[in-house]
Amino acid sequence: MSAEDAVLIDNIGELVTNDPTHGDGPHGVIADAALFVRDGIVAWAGRRADIPQGTDGARVDAGGGTVLPGFVDSHAHLVFAGDRAPEFAARMSGSPYAAGGIRTTVAATRSAPDDVLRARLGELVAEALRSGTTTIECKSGYGLTVADEVRSLRLAAEVTDELTFLGAHVVPEEYSGRADDYVALVVGEMLDACAPYAKWIDVFCDRGAFDGEQAREILRAGVARGLVPRVHANQLQTGDGVQVAVEFDAASADHVSHLTGSDIEALAASRTVATLLPGAEFSTRAAYPDARRLLDAGVTVALATDCNPGSSFTTSMPFCVAIAVRDMGMTPREAVWSATEGGAKALRREDVGHLRVGARADLLLLGAPSAVHLAYRPGVDLVSGVWRSGQRVHVGSAR
Amino acid sequence: MSAEDAVLIDNIGELVTNDPTHGDGPHGVIADAALFVRDGIVAWAGRRADIPQGTDGARVDAGGGTVLPGFVDSHAHLVFAGDRAPEFAARMSGSPYAAGGIRTTVAATRSAPDDVLRARLGELVAEALRSGTTTIECKSGYGLTVADEVRSLRLAAEVTDELTFLGAHVVPEEYSGRADDYVALVVGEMLDACAPYAKWIDVFCDRGAFDGEQAREILRAGVARGLVPRVHANQLQTGDGVQVAVEFDAASADHVSHLTGSDIEALAASRTVATLLPGAEFSTRAAYPDARRLLDAGVTVALATDCNPGSSFTTSMPFCVAIAVRDMGMTPREAVWSATEGGAKALRREDVGHLRVGARADLLLLGAPSAVHLAYRPGVDLVSGVWRSGQRVHVGSAR
Repeated sequence: MSAEDAVLIDNIGELVTNDPTHGDGPHGVIADAALFVRDGIVAWAGRRADIPQGTDGARVDAGGGTVLPGFVDSHAHLVFAGDRAPEFAARMSGSPYAAGGIRTTVAATRSAPDDVLRARLGELVAEALRSGTTTIECKSGYGLTVADEVRSLRLAAEVTDELTFLGAHVVPEEYSGRADDYVALVVGEMLDACAPYAKWIDVFCDRGAFDGEQAREILRAGVARGLVPRVHANQLQTGDGVQVAVEFDAASADHVSHLTGSDIEALAASRTVATLLPGAEFSTRAAYPDARRLLDAGVTVALATDCNPGSSFTTSMPFCVAIAVRDMGMTPREAVWSATEGGAKALRREDVGHLRVGARADLLLLGAPSAVHLAYRPGVDLVSGVWRSGQRVHVGSAR
Repeated sequence: MSAEDAVLIDNIGELVTNDPTHGDGPHGVIADAALFVRDGIVAWAGRRADIPQGTDGARVDAGGGTVLPGFVDSHAHLVFAGDRAPEFAARMSGSPYAAGGIRTTVAATRSAPDDVLRARLGELVAEALRSGTTTIECKSGYGLTVADEVRSLRLAAEVTDELTFLGAHVVPEEYSGRADDYVALVVGEMLDACAPYAKWIDVFCDRGAFDGEQAREILRAGVARGLVPRVHANQLQTGDGVQVAVEFDAASADHVSHLTGSDIEALAASRTVATLLPGAEFSTRAAYPDARRLLDAGVTVALATDCNPGSSFTTSMPFCVAIAVRDMGMTPREAVWSATEGGAKALRREDVGHLRVGARADLLLLGAPSAVHLAYRPGVDLVSGVWRSGQRVHVGSAR
């Protein structure tokens, strides 16, 4: 063992492992803890009093702060150009949100050179990392031509492995009134070109986007190409989205702001995660989804940012945690779980979202005595350090 | 003129001056702008094309970002020990907020040594500065003995000049059932000891705290000692708070979450600012005040954090701006004005809150093309630089 590849994080006031078999309660919380990382992997986690022999690498003093798994942001749209601040300002004076606004960003994205898209993408990923996000999913969906969708995925592949083909984000302008022709393009030439770059296939199944039958056709084609489904479902109204997601054993049904009782039953009986995106309701002044109802029904809930320039221009998982607690009925600890392990489950990842022995050492240190402070101290940057695979990649300002 | 004492901030995408006579609209917004600071004072502000001769000091490239006045946080409680995260977590599971919880912090504060209080105070002021707050008010009110109130103000004086004596925060435990005896102490020996340290006199006039008659007695005594009134009014229910504030020509009535029509008329006809504290409603899951109704009635509205460990443990004015836009009916530009010039008016300050020629050069640079982004990008740290009196005191991570 090389000492350079090992680090002991000591003097942790609260360690959140998300390991119910180790530590207190369902989230595996350990007080007065330490964590030993070797070769980018969690090698040991436990009470300071129990630190084993052989932990002689670098040593980091956590100063009584909190260590938790890095946030797993399982839903983000990061390849785009332009912003929509004027549309946001108008909406905050009363204009409603409509999915069609996506077309504004499509036009800007198509006309932007690679370097412009790459620079914005890099800034957003860096910004997310500073607030504690160590795994981030990224969708295409602002290209909507074969070449522009491929380009989006190719650029996104430079920053993440969690790549989602979302050619079916919205019907582009030039296919207005010919949605079925666009679906044929998506499941044909576009999917052929994009599938080699992507892990996931996604479709926006909602008012103003694609209906249930179109969504099924798109997911079916994606599955045939080896992609795994996830669905933008029931954001704007009740509809087929959740049922389609469950029918296709999707990894996640995202938004799910408008649910019937049978939607909730279907989710609870499935292994499809309900991914809630409070930034979208925040920035469109829509009603928040009722996380409590989902949790009480036994649904697995994830939190993600939905980062995009139209309806949720935030990369901040701490912000999503705070809103989920304030406005969606989650307890602080449930929200932290959903932003970490919940996101990992929405991406069907076993290696992140928790700090069990063997996990990837993706974690953050808060300058606060408890993870509850992520909701208790809203808007405050509490991050004092971020590690990815055991390497410290950010030093924050928080004490 | 010494070049070291001068700086030209150039390549500003958007400059918010809050000077309606200079720039566009009521908030004096100038696109493609520059700002020249000399000897800690704004010496010139305008379009880049019009930069005058003689601006040969240091030069800062704002990179197309936004420059706005530093935030003026006119309501904060920063001298205390302990935190109340467990109480917060319990409340997020359904327990209501009660003013009596203040006593928990009083006990912790009284038993803490000076160094503990000083360290916490310093951390909070530094944290506020990093998010763009260049002027911050600080109240006593967790001591509630003569010695502990004096100590609170003495410590607060190390970090700010905006000092408020709030001996009448709540009736302390040892005076339970003897509120009038406690009021006698506040207006007598305690005021005698505290008045030399303070500029403002404040009283929590609400259910569970002090009634209208007690509030009047306290403010009258403070005024007699040269202090200027401000009032914690109508946070928990309608009552006498606003009427008392207006009657005493208070600089500000704070919280004002529960207002009658005549309260609003009284505020509109007065020079008392309505200071809204969205962090308190956020962290107590209470209904937000209706800023729109106040603005439409012609009331001057300020935004502040109410930073305290019980009901609003945030120092983030950007967070307050975002919530005010999302949940209180303010436009993004109105909210930014209320967080800068509005706060200055609530502190009756002419030198801060705006960037007119002659203003103190307290300002911040955002890595964003418009101040609208403070609401459009909720939870994201956009601050890339903070200046106080022309000196750069913080370099942020935002591009």
